Amino acid sequence: MRVDELDTPVLTIDLDALEENLARYQRYYDEHQMALRPHIKTHKTLAIAHRQMAQGAIGLTCQKIGEAEVMVAGGLTVDILIPFNIIGKTKIDRLARLTRQTQITVAADSETTVRGLSEGAQAEGVTFGVIVEVEAGMNRTGVQTPAAAVELAQLIDKLPGLELRGFMAYPTPPASRPIIQETLHLFDKAGLAHPIVSGGGTRWAMEAHEIPELTEYRIGEYPTGGEGHLRAGRHTVEQCSLRVIATVISAPTPDRVILDAGSKTMSASTLQTPEGTSMGYIVEYPEARFYGASEEHGHVDVSACAVKPQIGERVQVLPVHPCPCVNEHDEMVAVRGGLVEAVWPILARGKIR
Amino acid sequence: MRVDELDTPVLTIDLDALEENLARYQRYYDEHQMALRPHIKTHKTLAIAHRQMAQGAIGLTCQKIGEAEVMVAGGLTVDILIPFNIIGKTKIDRLARLTRQTQITVAADSETTVRGLSEGAQAEGVTFGVIVEVEAGMNRTGVQTPAAAVELAQLIDKLPGLELRGFMAYPTPPASRPIIQETLHLFDKAGLAHPIVSGGGTRWAMEAHEIPELTEYRIGEYPTGGEGHLRAGRHTVEQCSLRVIATVISAPTPDRVILDAGSKTMSASTLQTPEGTSMGYIVEYPEARFYGASEEHGHVDVSACAVKPQIGERVQVLPVHPCPCVNEHDEMVAVRGGLVEAVWPILARGKIR
Repeated sequence: MRVDELDTPVLTIDLDALEENLARYQRYYDEHQMALRPHIKTHKTLAIAHRQMAQGAIGLTCQKIGEAEVMVAGGLTVDILIPFNIIGKTKIDRLARLTRQTQITVAADSETTVRGLSEGAQAEGVTFGVIVEVEAGMNRTGVQTPAAAVELAQLIDKLPGLELRGFMAYPTPPASRPIIQETLHLFDKAGLAHPIVSGGGTRWAMEAHEIPELTEYRIGEYPTGGEGHLRAGRHTVEQCSLRVIATVISAPTPDRVILDAGSKTMSASTLQTPEGTSMGYIVEYPEARFYGASEEHGHVDVSACAVKPQIGERVQVLPVHPCPCVNEHDEMVAVRGGLVEAVWPILARGKIR
Repeated sequence: MRVDELDTPVLTIDLDALEENLARYQRYYDEHQMALRPHIKTHKTLAIAHRQMAQGAIGLTCQKIGEAEVMVAGGLTVDILIPFNIIGKTKIDRLARLTRQTQITVAADSETTVRGLSEGAQAEGVTFGVIVEVEAGMNRTGVQTPAAAVELAQLIDKLPGLELRGFMAYPTPPASRPIIQETLHLFDKAGLAHPIVSGGGTRWAMEAHEIPELTEYRIGEYPTGGEGHLRAGRHTVEQCSLRVIATVISAPTPDRVILDAGSKTMSASTLQTPEGTSMGYIVEYPEARFYGASEEHGHVDVSACAVKPQIGERVQVLPVHPCPCVNEHDEMVAVRGGLVEAVWPILARGKIR
């Protein structure tokens, strides 16, 4: 089946571009002797995770227990990091089950989380591997200072049922190096183990070597690219492997066309560009601006296009943010040379718990 | 099972509030002798659609063929409007199948769409009911003027395999009445049928009677409410039936807590409020501001809260936009009086085609 025979809208991934991205990034980490731990939240798909491991990844990152369950059940009994505070008996029971099947590490940023994990580990007769999350400048999760990180690490080290495995931060641009260094220094001073010093963020993926203290780096979007990566020069159009194929279904005015792909297909994510808000980059019409959407309609300003797309015409759209876009879909169609090679179920989609 | 035993995050719908909303809005349309045609894109759930029909709805609105297929297969062989330009053989074949099972009407705003429907109807040996979509002020789909609407209606009336059923617009605030009136006048002058004159939009749902020319009104969000409706006074907190229950899993600073519900649970939709961007309204902490999210983390400013939510505490969050929020979930838990009464699969979720 040819790609142009697929009904639209449809999520596709180009295998040549995907494989080139996987090889290129793995090569960078190999060259810098840093481990790569891909984040599966971008693709949520077993076939891609298996390819990432085959390329040489040290293990995987999963953001929720449900994502890790899908990966493990799909044959990925690999070293998995869940950078999330696991709280409550239901989730701790599931974490214990995962721990019996493969190597699992979770992150924590509070005494409440850590004490809950210790109690759960004892009740289940398992040991949970734990790293501390430390704030590195973006005001997300994480203890606020390296000193607080060491304090929490000491508690982890002391509590029964837990094994301290180091620390993490997100994201870790080069400017965050002093925080990593200070945390490391304080861990060493306190005699605490830190086999894992984990950084992450696709935006700084190729600058990871500027923080040589990191043992590993977590990135999600490098296999797919997207409009943000294209605009920042991290991926060429050809390297942007993830594309929604959409059809022009209306042209209400000469300057505006409507696609059959709205926010339910692209996700409601937006990107602020010099030209204004964008909800996607249209490969065939770089001058077009996908400026808005209702759930099933994409609104595109084509006033700058010398030749305008016509009703019935198909276009390829790069999402502004691949992760939530993928999460809107049940499957992605893997294509090579314009032919459909596989249809992959997005099995880790919607795993919010 | 009690609601507080459900693991989080979880999408819930309060049945008492849902039923009161369904009755209240149906009563309004009954009083004004206007038909109500609920849009199922908000809830995407058979159980709610069946309740809407039982309350007296004239039929349903589905935005994509896949949504209509789910409804019809789920026993809703009712009068269904699909306000979407159906283009291409695959979709027209599916439309023909639906047409053999129940009463279906589609909207069109171009000659391309209309000619494709006519050819498809002839090839399949069916008749497609078609209404014209006319622009009413929001620059979405639709022909640009009442005169253009009549021109397209005349083509529909003339082409084999099609049955002209009137026209529609979206949204139809009271200010759009002149467009409706002029279109109606031109239809009458040309001797064109218009059994359906369809308006819509929850925001103006209770002002529909100000355009008495409408035969029916399409609304989606009235069963659920949401933060926008709460702020506009259309729903009280109690009437906002759709809620995500989330858990506080981190409190990095005294002024900030992190929920286990991010954009993958709430959707990436945002609402601009006087206090800034919102991604949800926290029922127990009205002074809190859910100002941002990553995919699995909700970021909440609690600086204005006299008492701060603690790690492990559960909160109820009203989505800013119920439709994309529901689309992130595979099921919703129906609750009454704090007890789980049913778990409804969201069968029309993700039906992008």
